[in-house]
Amino acid sequence: MDMKIFTKRGLVAAAMIALPSLAMAQDAAAPGFDEIGPYIMTTLLFCMAGFLVFFMACGFAMLEGGLVRSKNVTMQMTKNIALYSIAAIMYWFMGFNLMYPGDFNGYVGSFFVPTVLDPVGIAAADAALDYASIGSDFFFQLVFVAATASIVSGALAERIKLWPFLAFVVLLTGVMYPISGSWQWGGGWLSEAGFSDFAGSTVVHSVGGWAALAGAIVLGPRIGKYSKDGKVIPIPGSNLALATLGTFILWLGWFGFNGGSQLAMGTVGDVSDVSRIFANTNMAAAAGAVTALILTQVMYKKPDLTMVLNGALAGLVSITAEPLAPTLFGALWIGAVGGVIVVLAVPMLDKLKIDDVVGAIPVHLFAGIWGTIAVIFYNGDASLGTQLVGIAAYGVFTFVASLVVWSILKAVIGIRVGEEEEINGLDMSEMGMEAYPEFSKS
Amino acid sequence: MDMKIFTKRGLVAAAMIALPSLAMAQDAAAPGFDEIGPYIMTTLLFCMAGFLVFFMACGFAMLEGGLVRSKNVTMQMTKNIALYSIAAIMYWFMGFNLMYPGDFNGYVGSFFVPTVLDPVGIAAADAALDYASIGSDFFFQLVFVAATASIVSGALAERIKLWPFLAFVVLLTGVMYPISGSWQWGGGWLSEAGFSDFAGSTVVHSVGGWAALAGAIVLGPRIGKYSKDGKVIPIPGSNLALATLGTFILWLGWFGFNGGSQLAMGTVGDVSDVSRIFANTNMAAAAGAVTALILTQVMYKKPDLTMVLNGALAGLVSITAEPLAPTLFGALWIGAVGGVIVVLAVPMLDKLKIDDVVGAIPVHLFAGIWGTIAVIFYNGDASLGTQLVGIAAYGVFTFVASLVVWSILKAVIGIRVGEEEEINGLDMSEMGMEAYPEFSKS
Amino acid sequence: MDMKIFTKRGLVAAAMIALPSLAMAQDAAAPGFDEIGPYIMTTLLFCMAGFLVFFMACGFAMLEGGLVRSKNVTMQMTKNIALYSIAAIMYWFMGFNLMYPGDFNGYVGSFFVPTVLDPVGIAAADAALDYASIGSDFFFQLVFVAATASIVSGALAERIKLWPFLAFVVLLTGVMYPISGSWQWGGGWLSEAGFSDFAGSTVVHSVGGWAALAGAIVLGPRIGKYSKDGKVIPIPGSNLALATLGTFILWLGWFGFNGGSQLAMGTVGDVSDVSRIFANTNMAAAAGAVTALILTQVMYKKPDLTMVLNGALAGLVSITAEPLAPTLFGALWIGAVGGVIVVLAVPMLDKLKIDDVVGAIPVHLFAGIWGTIAVIFYNGDASLGTQLVGIAAYGVFTFVASLVVWSILKAVIGIRVGEEEEINGLDMSEMGMEAYPEFSKS
Repeated sequence: MDMKIFTKRGLVAAAMIALPSLAMAQDAAAPGFDEIGPYIMTTLLFCMAGFLVFFMACGFAMLEGGLVRSKNVTMQMTKNIALYSIAAIMYWFMGFNLMYPGDFNGYVGSFFVPTVLDPVGIAAADAALDYASIGSDFFFQLVFVAATASIVSGALAERIKLWPFLAFVVLLTGVMYPISGSWQWGGGWLSEAGFSDFAGSTVVHSVGGWAALAGAIVLGPRIGKYSKDGKVIPIPGSNLALATLGTFILWLGWFGFNGGSQLAMGTVGDVSDVSRIFANTNMAAAAGAVTALILTQVMYKKPDLTMVLNGALAGLVSITAEPLAPTLFGALWIGAVGGVIVVLAVPMLDKLKIDDVVGAIPVHLFAGIWGTIAVIFYNGDASLGTQLVGIAAYGVFTFVASLVVWSILKAVIGIRVGEEEEINGLDMSEMGMEAYPEFSKS
Repeated sequence: MDMKIFTKRGLVAAAMIALPSLAMAQDAAAPGFDEIGPYIMTTLLFCMAGFLVFFMACGFAMLEGGLVRSKNVTMQMTKNIALYSIAAIMYWFMGFNLMYPGDFNGYVGSFFVPTVLDPVGIAAADAALDYASIGSDFFFQLVFVAATASIVSGALAERIKLWPFLAFVVLLTGVMYPISGSWQWGGGWLSEAGFSDFAGSTVVHSVGGWAALAGAIVLGPRIGKYSKDGKVIPIPGSNLALATLGTFILWLGWFGFNGGSQLAMGTVGDVSDVSRIFANTNMAAAAGAVTALILTQVMYKKPDLTMVLNGALAGLVSITAEPLAPTLFGALWIGAVGGVIVVLAVPMLDKLKIDDVVGAIPVHLFAGIWGTIAVIFYNGDASLGTQLVGIAAYGVFTFVASLVVWSILKAVIGIRVGEEEEINGLDMSEMGMEAYPEFSKS
Repeated sequence: MDMKIFTKRGLVAAAMIALPSLAMAQDAAAPGFDEIGPYIMTTLLFCMAGFLVFFMACGFAMLEGGLVRSKNVTMQMTKNIALYSIAAIMYWFMGFNLMYPGDFNGYVGSFFVPTVLDPVGIAAADAALDYASIGSDFFFQLVFVAATASIVSGALAERIKLWPFLAFVVLLTGVMYPISGSWQWGGGWLSEAGFSDFAGSTVVHSVGGWAALAGAIVLGPRIGKYSKDGKVIPIPGSNLALATLGTFILWLGWFGFNGGSQLAMGTVGDVSDVSRIFANTNMAAAAGAVTALILTQVMYKKPDLTMVLNGALAGLVSITAEPLAPTLFGALWIGAVGGVIVVLAVPMLDKLKIDDVVGAIPVHLFAGIWGTIAVIFYNGDASLGTQLVGIAAYGVFTFVASLVVWSILKAVIGIRVGEEEEINGLDMSEMGMEAYPEFSKS
């Protein structure tokens, strides 16, 4: 090779690992863009949507870190980065192949089949030209399961022990989510029955919500949340700027969450649909936020920022089951109902003395159910009956399985920190490290 | 369908909603990438640039949240997420079709024509193959109008009431910005006259700046900002880490703001131009930051971080009217002048007792004017006269209209919180919720 | 032109600057997507990966701002936005052409040859169709050099003066990094010798680490870090939520850092490889985080969040030299070893009384060396001997050159603030501006 070919990093790297691409580009017989274009575009969609959804892990961490008290922020950060990391490992180790059996393995007996990527520099003839690379598909699906676990993290904050929580995450991301996910996205019985959940109002968000609900019941409320005479004591979050940052990051990530779920970008119809989904997703979030703003003003005479943030998120969850078919007006009212749900459901949960620190259950479970039902208004192929069957199936399975797992964890190793540890904060008692050590507390 | 086709989420979803894409991919008569490639790439550009510009809403919120006092942070967060949401709804409800009349409706009488997206799975034959999908175009334009509103939010912080501010946002994003925007980007009289504003130094940033200036005049300065003997009392921001975060996010978003304004990515020339814009945009921001750093060191013997942040932003605003044509050296000096402007203009505004909390008027209005003039140095089609006419037209229209709206709002419902509320902070008095409730204040 | 053509901003803008794209799209003789598709996709890859890596500058700022004490946060923010800006200018002014000589200039005598972008609207016939636009390549390489400088910033925090630090950045980004970078990525002797460093474990990260190590030695430790009887006094970071945010942003940016280093996206093999790299990069980070979590639990009985964050980063640095060839299991164990390294190396550095405020040297230097060695396990073209030669070459050159520069700066203008200034904090003494002025310090 002459010198010139070594002057760009690309060519150097390419030469190093003997990529076929240079040869291919000059090979007249190589397939043209009409054949490979869709594969390239869809693989790119998964990579791009994947990094956006990855960033939702950060959004959840910031949202939850802002809504807990400062004495528990180090713990919340630790849980969130750890749960994402565990999800990444478990989904590789068993989740992905358990969830998507058809192309890889039989369903039963496929519990421990780690993901294998396409070979380096795969030839067009060997690639799934009607879809995308395994690496991109795996990465995109993996960030979804992490979102489910992040939902649980928020609801159970400020009193759960680190390691039992992470043990639950291992089971949720390696076993529970993949099994129930396969019912729909793995081509299982619900998908055959006609259940419709485009990007996961039920498959991802409700599942996270059910797991959180089971956990919150087994765990019990934080000390001081409910007084002996039944009153609810508000426990404000320590950093609303951080919570707002987290919400914006989640909103950003949701473009990948819903847009990527089109699962194709290589035709006019597909890329146009991705953009439809972007517009609808944005509209639903906006509608949820504005609705919560107005409703809290009307109900409490003061707008409530945490409700506005959760309203936006509820709008996003609501549109997630069907972000494509609705008109923009459809996205608006579906998202707005999500905003109403969250404003009404937060005090309702408190009446039941279910202590959900960040409002994850209203946002992800209740709005997730709503969004799954709302599919029927704009998607002619969906029926209310089947949607309800799907909602119930995911609910029963996840709630019962979670209840069992949480109860076993509680019985065997304990899931809740001691009273003194909880009052002093998990950061000092469990981590020995404060998040804001220099700032005086009121 | 055989089992295998149900094993990937993509195919499941595709089957659910009867997308034409699978059929098309196997249809030999379907148009090839030479025909559909540009549409796909440009639609993708709008989606990608759109989510970057969306994230600027977060950047503005963090910048402004870091530059206000801690007692007003909850309010600032609420305003910023609410204004984005309102912009999204208003721009759908009337703004987009008001601004871009030609393809959709006549100009007059098109005030309440909500946006209609392309149908689901649009066929290539029905799509605007020489441009992009409506959804992507709508989303991309929508995030621009939100940026305009965010600019106003910063300047008027710490004393304006929530609801009158949001009422102004309704009019700004639904009526004022679309009308003046249509003069240039809707193919109106300024565009026909040869006015040149690539990505909106004037159309977006100056407009936000003029609206903020009118508001700051009607609203008056914060209590304690100017002493009775004419001295300026510095009111430092409460969280410079947050302000820096916001600046970096805005810088990131600006790659979408300017790069997406190429409005095409499907040819060699277009994608190369997008990358030229990336490089120039980055250079102008860097030059603005370094200039402000050096200038504050020279002038005040100490570098000033808030000036450096605003210097970077002023560099970005300065290059926005013409990020394509300049050389990298051109981008450097255009951005550097922006940095000078902001360092000199902040104290100048204070002499006029115009209280702009975050420096939005120097950054977006003054640097916006500069950037619009600077177009003539590298774009041979632009003339100083026409640029000045454009600057003046946007200035007169937006400033006068804003002055009228602010004055009416002031007279009818009042726009400023009471003296006691302002001193105690808007968070407790208006929202009943502190942003950092646990941290002792000095 | 008829009215309709003026109704979209795209067409307006296109008309303004006489782009060839419209004509081309209708020109039957124009090259089709089989010819231009790879150029478009690779240019897009560089733009997209470029903005992700740009955002790493924000990630470094947040990570470092969270790990320093609150009295030094304004200074840390200033340094980080300034170093990025200086890198952008210096890399344009000389770095890029110094580093990539072949296509642009001869190596010797090319010290002051600023980058020149492709002309506006470059025709396909004039473009590097087998690669990408200069603008995209320049932007992508530029954000890499900024990462190197950010590494130095963290290690030397809390006691170095602003201007000497920035003077070092000028030399690092304009001269040192480009010279050593050209050995490998410019097609120099190391690349010819068969050294392999896909995305820069050595070329970027170790170089930053060596420069930081030299600086830390010349500068000396912070006052109070090591007691007179040899004990290490922990100095906790002031804001662990911010540090976590920074880590997540860096993780996000790393998809661009490693994925973009594929340097091509226009074939099935290339885009599939990009997705492989995404999956492997993510896995290595997750493994590093989990390993650090478990190891600190075992060693210290309490998990350590800052170690988990640095573990994730060490995993990322470890996979950076070869993110493509390993299997997912390979990425897991390579990243896990990175996590072990960081947990063991932090106390080791403290024994040597080398005060590295954020752990940059273990993360970027030690894990960078490890990652460069680990290439041999999955890339058959790499040999241990050559890898060690490369590691040593970069180490000797960068460490010696940095030592000389730091020593000269120390002798001539002084690099360390006075004792009183350091104790009072750099923010008040050097900047006159606190980052969190309203919050009481404990």
